[in-house]
Amino acid sequence: MSPRDLTVSVGARSGSYDVVVAVGALDGLPELLRSRAPAFRYAVISDSRVAPLHGESVGAALERDGLDARLFVFPEGEAHKTRESWTSLTDGLLEAGFGRDSAIVAVGGGVTTDLAGFVAATFMRGVPVVQVPTSYLAMIDASVGGKTGVDVPHGKNLVGAFHAPALVVADPAVLTTLSAEERAQGLVEAFKHGAALDASYFDRLASNLPALLDADPDAAQEAVGRSVELKAGVVEADEREGGFRQVLNFGHTLGHAIEAASDFAVGHGTAVAVGMLLEAEVGEALGITESGTRALLEAGLDGLGLPALPALDAERVVGYLATDKKTRGGRPRYVLLRSLGEADPGDGWTHDVPDRLVLEALSARLAAV
Amino acid sequence: MSPRDLTVSVGARSGSYDVVVAVGALDGLPELLRSRAPAFRYAVISDSRVAPLHGESVGAALERDGLDARLFVFPEGEAHKTRESWTSLTDGLLEAGFGRDSAIVAVGGGVTTDLAGFVAATFMRGVPVVQVPTSYLAMIDASVGGKTGVDVPHGKNLVGAFHAPALVVADPAVLTTLSAEERAQGLVEAFKHGAALDASYFDRLASNLPALLDADPDAAQEAVGRSVELKAGVVEADEREGGFRQVLNFGHTLGHAIEAASDFAVGHGTAVAVGMLLEAEVGEALGITESGTRALLEAGLDGLGLPALPALDAERVVGYLATDKKTRGGRPRYVLLRSLGEADPGDGWTHDVPDRLVLEALSARLAAV
Repeated sequence: MSPRDLTVSVGARSGSYDVVVAVGALDGLPELLRSRAPAFRYAVISDSRVAPLHGESVGAALERDGLDARLFVFPEGEAHKTRESWTSLTDGLLEAGFGRDSAIVAVGGGVTTDLAGFVAATFMRGVPVVQVPTSYLAMIDASVGGKTGVDVPHGKNLVGAFHAPALVVADPAVLTTLSAEERAQGLVEAFKHGAALDASYFDRLASNLPALLDADPDAAQEAVGRSVELKAGVVEADEREGGFRQVLNFGHTLGHAIEAASDFAVGHGTAVAVGMLLEAEVGEALGITESGTRALLEAGLDGLGLPALPALDAERVVGYLATDKKTRGGRPRYVLLRSLGEADPGDGWTHDVPDRLVLEALSARLAAV
Repeated sequence: MSPRDLTVSVGARSGSYDVVVAVGALDGLPELLRSRAPAFRYAVISDSRVAPLHGESVGAALERDGLDARLFVFPEGEAHKTRESWTSLTDGLLEAGFGRDSAIVAVGGGVTTDLAGFVAATFMRGVPVVQVPTSYLAMIDASVGGKTGVDVPHGKNLVGAFHAPALVVADPAVLTTLSAEERAQGLVEAFKHGAALDASYFDRLASNLPALLDADPDAAQEAVGRSVELKAGVVEADEREGGFRQVLNFGHTLGHAIEAASDFAVGHGTAVAVGMLLEAEVGEALGITESGTRALLEAGLDGLGLPALPALDAERVVGYLATDKKTRGGRPRYVLLRSLGEADPGDGWTHDVPDRLVLEALSARLAAV
């Protein structure tokens, strides 16, 4: 263990669980499973890209250690985070004779942690899941907090369950297997944590950006650790997103609509980055967000070198706001900042915003493309 | 309210909920929803048989009362308790613009309460469900305790979630719309409660059987009330079926396998009744169950006039035991009685039983068909 290794305990309705953040943690996975997530059999779930990189070696390491493990692979990509993949993984486990005394080990990015988590949440009414995130996005955001789910034609993550993991093992050493753009996309969620909860973390991310984009283990360990700490504090206070957990949706109301309107051609990080800027702009226009916040956000995010948005129709984007999970009384809800590092309490930590303001900000942004 | 009207409070991890058991309770549903399950919109879910009997009138009553309600109908029958029906109901709700501030009102038998409960458990990661059971089976068993799920090709209820209802409203007046056989099938679960938990209740059921089969409101109110009390005590002690809740699976290890081996031609009640007799026989052979228990069970169940089993292959039935949710270490587990009215604690309230004994009991029973 290096001095920066970190174990964060997260309180959940189903009992607390540990998030281990340590370079090299993957090597100790069999031992961690034995002690923290004992099971009769382990189903390792990876996508077709991560399986040869990490899934196969994880399965082999478990077997060498005398654990009964079997690898299940689904096709890579957000397009496969579907009820069909969930069905086929579930039936694969049943076909292989997995029972309620099994545990699922999800090895991959956010698509895998969400999809395998939903398989675990619903397999025989729920079996434990161990999340082994291999991307920045999954380490920073997706694997902590118990959200699982799949996309459906009406939108992302509209079907799913809260299912807290038994254990999360994040090993920043594996981030080297990501492309530069994937790293940039995933780091957007770290900036979101800073923007909504901790301005000094936001600044630290901006100044460490070259090392983070380079997957430098020390820089990655520090950022993943701080994001996990911040997120753990939020989900402990409000696991089921009844109130305070909403702050983690900063940038996501418009972000999700942009992703959907592009048929998911726009990456999640790019969409959320634009969503944060637009939601800051709207917040400033309403006098809720301190003037200049949007500019600070833009300066910080600039170093990520995210791709520009493609041409999108603003009205089409607005159309997707109606099916957002955060709607209340049929109206979309927005997390607005008070200032950089501090979300505004609003009404249950979200706000109603006049459609006209949203459409104006969106149209101006899209016209600039 | 008549003197026999009953409200049972059930403790659940997500907070306690009330089960209202009262003749005429359905008339007060809008008021109950306003006070116990407030929501922006209500999705009433019924199957194609119950919709014209009760679902439509429930929806209309809610609307007359100023609530926003809409009826969603799926095809009747266990064959439709599937991931496909779940998908189509979910997409129907999304298409109609239902959001996370909705609640689902399940009006129907056990298929409906399980399926609509699973839709609620997974819609936008969970919305409240109000269970309005219209069959003996659903009032006595399915609607209390938070089990939801669907059947898959490998077996019944293998996919699902624990999702405690916000409220359960059981109105024994609606039992008149069931056929005589449906009443008999559903009452098997009441006998199961007596057999595993309360011998005097078992006897009371047997002596009241003509009135119960006739859906006499007073007799039905008493039985539903007692079953709900017994079940509430069990699920409060062990919501997630980690131990004591297993006792409710008496008769169900072999019952489920018989249903599956008949391709669900055998009714659930018939299968569980035979399962209880066989599991009592096996328990007596092992010296765990008091000698004569099986005969007592048979005498009580006899008055139900359940249909005989069709010809089934015993080996085929045994084959289905391997995919039972109760397997542990790859072995099926059985709830065994100590005596009528008392389950044996075993190891976590279940037992391993030699395959040979099970096969012998099954073969003898099936040879007698």
